[in-house]
Amino acid sequence: MKQTVAYLGPEGTFTQEAAQCLLQPENYTFVSYRTIADVLNAVYEKKNDLGVVPVENAIEGSVNLTLDWLAHKVDVPITAEVVYPVSQHLLVHSFHQGKDWSAYTKVVSHPQALAQCQLFLRKYLGHAEQEYANSTAEAARMVSEHPDEPWLAIGTRLAQKMYHLSFREQAIEDYEQNFTRFIVVGEKPAFLTHTTEAHKTTLLVSLPEDFPGALHQVLAAFAWRKINLTHLESRPTKKGLGSYHFFIDAEMKADNVLLQGAMREIEALGCEVRLLGSFPCYIFTESLNRVHR
Amino acid sequence: MKQTVAYLGPEGTFTQEAAQCLLQPENYTFVSYRTIADVLNAVYEKKNDLGVVPVENAIEGSVNLTLDWLAHKVDVPITAEVVYPVSQHLLVHSFHQGKDWSAYTKVVSHPQALAQCQLFLRKYLGHAEQEYANSTAEAARMVSEHPDEPWLAIGTRLAQKMYHLSFREQAIEDYEQNFTRFIVVGEKPAFLTHTTEAHKTTLLVSLPEDFPGALHQVLAAFAWRKINLTHLESRPTKKGLGSYHFFIDAEMKADNVLLQGAMREIEALGCEVRLLGSFPCYIFTESLNRVHR
Repeated sequence: MKQTVAYLGPEGTFTQEAAQCLLQPENYTFVSYRTIADVLNAVYEKKNDLGVVPVENAIEGSVNLTLDWLAHKVDVPITAEVVYPVSQHLLVHSFHQGKDWSAYTKVVSHPQALAQCQLFLRKYLGHAEQEYANSTAEAARMVSEHPDEPWLAIGTRLAQKMYHLSFREQAIEDYEQNFTRFIVVGEKPAFLTHTTEAHKTTLLVSLPEDFPGALHQVLAAFAWRKINLTHLESRPTKKGLGSYHFFIDAEMKADNVLLQGAMREIEALGCEVRLLGSFPCYIFTESLNRVHR
Repeated sequence: MKQTVAYLGPEGTFTQEAAQCLLQPENYTFVSYRTIADVLNAVYEKKNDLGVVPVENAIEGSVNLTLDWLAHKVDVPITAEVVYPVSQHLLVHSFHQGKDWSAYTKVVSHPQALAQCQLFLRKYLGHAEQEYANSTAEAARMVSEHPDEPWLAIGTRLAQKMYHLSFREQAIEDYEQNFTRFIVVGEKPAFLTHTTEAHKTTLLVSLPEDFPGALHQVLAAFAWRKINLTHLESRPTKKGLGSYHFFIDAEMKADNVLLQGAMREIEALGCEVRLLGSFPCYIFTESLNRVHR
């Protein structure tokens, strides 16, 4: 029987594209879930073997729901990371294809997609209402189901195909270099379509108390060993304003004697250190724009 | 003529409550704007004297739109900070007041408000659809305008009053200690309702390149001077995945010789340092639940 992969749906999201690029389609059945929490829970409760969720976007930054759920709610190891290009398109029902900008009354999309296209929207669609949808795929569905309304959706190429929409404009994101980083979580080793030499370790470090220089001491343990940190993200512990813990990505395997030493010393300083995963990293520089089924 | 204060609207948001608690109502006219970008632009273009926007929530973390707009789009100094308690309530049209949880089909709210109540929603309303609205106030309006639908909104006490809704449940947020930090921006000194001794300085620091230990060196400049850092937030520079700058909050006035020294040394290390503001900090521990007009 094939193993199953939970992913952040609905069908037509970048998460689905990224998951199906990295994981061997002949070995997996892909199952769509409605929220990031649902995906991570499905793996934690062993309903699915693996899960794929976004963790960081180059423009919008960390996906807080993913970080917070890993920190507070579930204990599932990260087993792989995949960086995947994302491009946002302005989709329209074919009835309203060639109209002037002023004719469009509403732009619908996921809040992150709208945020990624603010410059474009302010320039051409400042008059139009902006409405949040739960996903870019849902935004495309809304527009396809209201052919009588001059609405636009921001969404993926996959969503454009699924809902038979036209492009009013392609690649409207404000910044080039728009990539999203996804993580694969689960206990089982994954069957991957590619190989890589790149490897990372993610740690969650909680400082003992709010004293000047606590974070500086933690970083010193990495710095003198010349361990490269690719990302440092503070998140609230949810115990009150001003209380944080830190997600730290180090470019080194967890069993390396240097990283082992750094972790032990940071614990000796009174910090809590949790290993969230040590995993290979994959980078796709071109989107496949196709879906394995 | 009264000065004007731009705030993140619509009417009935926590931003309005916080702004009207801190700024003397007799000296200001309050003007609602639709987005954070609109508020900051209105002050930058001198349409309004001051602006008030959220910058951090104790549970959900930094408000990225505010940080990114300050970093990339406008140059407006932060002149005050206010910490204000927020509590989310489950609002319902009086027609549907006493129903079983299973009778409600949809919960509408701003994505951050829905995120703050995930535990409650999963426990009692796992079956119900979750729909995003552009603000908690708009969610309340939607519910009030659909008396025939068994829908719920998550919103403020002010929104409950404005749209004549009932409470299905009060204070449904997952964590206590839910405060939001707002900033006041603008060139002119503000007329405030309170006084304070607390003071902070916010810096934006861009590292010269991605080398091991760069951030560690920056933090060392604060640490040995025992300058307390209350917040450190990395945000993408939008130049590509893995490129960050840092928002650093120091508990010291910008003209203090120690902070001046730290800033000069960090620049000498090759970093770019931008002073975003040096300002008094106000904390309200109880919400006023009233609006000055």
